[in-house]
Amino acid sequence: MSNNTLTTRDENFSEWYNEIILKADMADYAPVRGCMVIKPYGWALWENIQKALDSRFKETGHQNAAFPLLIPMSFLEKEKEHVKGFSPELAVVTHGGGQKLEEPLVVRPTSETIIGHMYSKWIKSYRDLPVLINQWANVVRWEMRTRLFLRTLEFYWQEGHTAHATSKEAEEETLRMLHIYEDFAINEAAVPVICGMKSETEKFAGAVHSYTIEAMMGDTKALQSGTSHNLGQNFAQAFNIQYLDAQNQLQYCWTTSWGLSTRFIGAIIMTHGDDQGLILPPRLAPIQVVIVPIFHNLAEREEVMQYAQKITAVLADLRVKLDDRFEQTPGFKFNDWEMRGVPLRIEVGPRDVANNKIVIARRDIPGKAGKDIIEFGEIHQKVQSLLVDIHNSLLQKATAFRDSHIFEAQTYEELSRTVQNGWAFSYWCESKDCEARIKEDTKATTRCIPLHHDHGKGKCVVCGKETTTKAYFAKAY
Amino acid sequence: MSNNTLTTRDENFSEWYNEIILKADMADYAPVRGCMVIKPYGWALWENIQKALDSRFKETGHQNAAFPLLIPMSFLEKEKEHVKGFSPELAVVTHGGGQKLEEPLVVRPTSETIIGHMYSKWIKSYRDLPVLINQWANVVRWEMRTRLFLRTLEFYWQEGHTAHATSKEAEEETLRMLHIYEDFAINEAAVPVICGMKSETEKFAGAVHSYTIEAMMGDTKALQSGTSHNLGQNFAQAFNIQYLDAQNQLQYCWTTSWGLSTRFIGAIIMTHGDDQGLILPPRLAPIQVVIVPIFHNLAEREEVMQYAQKITAVLADLRVKLDDRFEQTPGFKFNDWEMRGVPLRIEVGPRDVANNKIVIARRDIPGKAGKDIIEFGEIHQKVQSLLVDIHNSLLQKATAFRDSHIFEAQTYEELSRTVQNGWAFSYWCESKDCEARIKEDTKATTRCIPLHHDHGKGKCVVCGKETTTKAYFAKAY
Repeated sequence: MSNNTLTTRDENFSEWYNEIILKADMADYAPVRGCMVIKPYGWALWENIQKALDSRFKETGHQNAAFPLLIPMSFLEKEKEHVKGFSPELAVVTHGGGQKLEEPLVVRPTSETIIGHMYSKWIKSYRDLPVLINQWANVVRWEMRTRLFLRTLEFYWQEGHTAHATSKEAEEETLRMLHIYEDFAINEAAVPVICGMKSETEKFAGAVHSYTIEAMMGDTKALQSGTSHNLGQNFAQAFNIQYLDAQNQLQYCWTTSWGLSTRFIGAIIMTHGDDQGLILPPRLAPIQVVIVPIFHNLAEREEVMQYAQKITAVLADLRVKLDDRFEQTPGFKFNDWEMRGVPLRIEVGPRDVANNKIVIARRDIPGKAGKDIIEFGEIHQKVQSLLVDIHNSLLQKATAFRDSHIFEAQTYEELSRTVQNGWAFSYWCESKDCEARIKEDTKATTRCIPLHHDHGKGKCVVCGKETTTKAYFAKAY
Repeated sequence: MSNNTLTTRDENFSEWYNEIILKADMADYAPVRGCMVIKPYGWALWENIQKALDSRFKETGHQNAAFPLLIPMSFLEKEKEHVKGFSPELAVVTHGGGQKLEEPLVVRPTSETIIGHMYSKWIKSYRDLPVLINQWANVVRWEMRTRLFLRTLEFYWQEGHTAHATSKEAEEETLRMLHIYEDFAINEAAVPVICGMKSETEKFAGAVHSYTIEAMMGDTKALQSGTSHNLGQNFAQAFNIQYLDAQNQLQYCWTTSWGLSTRFIGAIIMTHGDDQGLILPPRLAPIQVVIVPIFHNLAEREEVMQYAQKITAVLADLRVKLDDRFEQTPGFKFNDWEMRGVPLRIEVGPRDVANNKIVIARRDIPGKAGKDIIEFGEIHQKVQSLLVDIHNSLLQKATAFRDSHIFEAQTYEELSRTVQNGWAFSYWCESKDCEARIKEDTKATTRCIPLHHDHGKGKCVVCGKETTTKAYFAKAY
C-alpha cells in the first residue's frame, strides 16, 4: 500500500528515487547487503522489457541458451584486462558439498570466459559461423556502494555473445545490437538515449571498444543504460576460439558481447517519474489501464461493477486491471495507481453508468487538463490512441529536458559549471590525462563519443590541443 | 551436426540417453564438474515449457518475482529438517570483493528460507493473504552423481511460494499446483504421470507432506517430475510469518512451495525417444515442422525453394523451419531432424512442385506407414490435425507402456522381481522399516501413494500387517 508523502525530486532526488521504488512496490531490500528482491510489480515490468528485447534478438537471428553460473577462477585469469577489471568484484565459492574445493569457483560477474571456453569446443569451421547466442541470467558483482536497480550485488540481465569470421562482421554485429538497444529505449521505454563509443578508460575490461546508450535522468545525471562491445580477437586468443576458413587455414574468431540489465528499470523511473510517483511508458507498463469504480451504496456498487466489467471486457486485448477492492476509497486508489505510474485511469460512477460515459485520466498530465469524458462506444479506440499519445508525449518531454541540459562547453570553466547540472558536449583530445583531470576536478566522466560525428575542428576543452573529437561529459550513476 | 550411430535403448539405455542429448544438440558438459550448458535447441524446449506453465500459473492468480541467489547460512539453520536435508549439498560463498565474509552465504538450493524472511516483512494482515508468488530461477545443489538434465549441480526451475490464512487453503493450493503439473505433463508434454503423496521418508525436507507427479521412463525407471509441498506452519514458525486475523489476533500463516525443473526435459527424452533419436511432443517442440527441399541442380533448386517458401508462409502460425542448407544432402537432413525429434517433416522435390503435392512424414511412425502425400491446398489443416494426432498417439503409447509395466505385486518376492523391470503397486503398512527393507534389498523406493485411493484392505507386502494403503515402488532416477 502506498501513501502519498513522497519526498519531492527537488528536495532530494536520491531519496525520492528510493522511496518511489518501495512505495510503488517495485522492489525491496534483501537481507544480504546490496541485494534486492524484485517484487511482482517490478518483475512484471522486467518481463515486458524482456519480451520487447527478446523478440528483437530473435528477429535478428539470435537464439537463447544457458551457461553455468559458476566459473573456474583460472578462466577469469586468461584475459588479462578482463581479470584486472573484474577481480575486485568477485564472489567466490570455496566450499561445495561440505568439502573445500580444489579450485575456487567464481559466481559469474559476466560470461565471456565460460562462453569463450564453450565456443572453442563448438566452433570448428567457417560453416559454424556466425554463432549468435544470448542468455537471460543473473550475475553477481561485489559492489561497495549499492542502489536498488542501479547497482546491486546480484542483478538480472541479458548477455549476448557472438563469434564471427571477420572483424567487419563483428563490428557490424556490435553496432546492430547497439541500435537494437537504442530502438528499444526510444520506442518501447520512451527514454531518449544518445549512442556513442566509450573512451579507452571507460570501455569494458577486455574489449577493443565499447558502445553505449546513455540516458539523462531527471537530476541531469547520466545513466549508462546498455552496452555493446567489440571484443576483437582478445577472448578468441585467450580461449582459443578458432575455425578453419574456406582455404582450410586456422583462424581466430572475432567476438562481441552486449548487455542490458535491470538497471534499465532505474532509467525508466528517473526519466519519467514525478513528485506523485512513477510514470510508466505505456508499451512496457504491467498495467496500462486501471479502472476505479466509484459507488456509495450496495445498489450503486452492483451497477457500477457491472459497467466496469463491461469496460474491462472491451479492453481485454490490453493490460487492464479492475480495482475491485472494497475496503479502499476511490481517493486512496487514485493515489495508489498514480504512485505505481499506470498510464491511464478510468473512473466510473453511477452517473457515468446512466449516461453511458467514462471518465478517463492521463497519468502524465495532472488534474483536469489530463481528463476527458468519453462515450462508452469510443473507449477502445480512445484508449489505444491515448496510450500512443502518452508514449510520444513522454518521449518528447524527456528529449526536451535532455536537450535543454546539454551545453557546448567551450572552456574548462564552462565545462566545470555545466556538469554541475547538465552534460557538457566538448572537444576533447582523447588523452587519458585530460579525461582524468575532468573527473578529478568535477566528478564528471566521459559518457561517450557520439557516432557519425563530424564536428569540424576545435580545441580540447582541457589542454587546448586541436582535435576533431567531441564527447559528452557528465556526472553519472 | 548429428550422425546416426546412436547406441540403442536395449543395448544401454543410459548411454543412449547421454548420446541423444549431445547429438540432438540439447546440452553439453560444462567445465565445472556436474554442470551443464543448455544449448539453444534445449533452451528453446525449456522456453516452451516455461510458457505452458507460466500461463497456467498466471491464470490461477500467481505473479512472478525474483528473490536473491545468495542466502545467509544462518537462514538455512532456522528450520531443522530443512537444514538437515540440504546442508550436505550446499555451495558456499566465503569471499566477496576480495574480503572474507563475516557470515558465509549459501548459493540457494531452494528458496523457502529467504522467501520466508521476506514474507514475514510483507505480511501484516489477513487482507494481505493469500500471497501467491512464483520465481523462475537457477539453483545449486552439490550432487555427487550427476546426469545431464536429470541431476546437475546447477539447474533451472520455477519455485512457487505461497502463504495462506488457513490450513485448508494451503492444502487446496498444494493440490491445485499438483494438478497444474499433471495437466501440463499430460496435455503439453504427452507424459502420462501418476499423482500421489510422497512417503514420510521421501518428502521435502521441511514439509508436512509432499505431492509428486511420477513418470515412467523408457527403461521402466521412475522419474519424479514435479513436486508440490504443504509446508504447514513449519516455515511460518521458523521465519515468523504472522498475520492479524479479522479478530485482530496474531496467527501464523500456512505456506506451500512447488517446483518443476529442467529435469522435466529428461522426462520428455526418456518417455518418447526411440533408437533414431528424440521424439518431441508437438505442443512443446521448438520446431514443429521442418521442410526439406530436394533438388539435383540449380534450376530445380530455384523452383523447389520457391515452393518450400510458399509452404513456410502457409504454416507461419506454427513453429516451422525451412532447412535451406546447401552443403548437406537430404538424407543427412532427414537423419539430423529425426535425431532432433521434430514431429513432422515435409519433403518437396521437383515432382511435388509439378503436381502441387507435398510429402509429409511423421516422426513417431517410421517408414512408409508414417508418410502421406497431400495436396498443397490441404496442408495447413492436415499439419494441424497431424500434430494433434501425434500428441495423442505419443500419450497413448506412453500410457500403454507404463500400464503394461505396473504390476500389483502381492508378495515380497513378486515385488522384488517386478521392480527389476517395472513398478510394483502393493499394499504397504506405511512403516519406515518396511520401506527401508525394500530399498535395501531391491534399490526400489516408494514413489507415491496415489490420491483418492480406495483399494479396500490388504496385507503389507513386506510385514503382512493389514493396511488400506497402497503405494507404487520402483527404481528411480
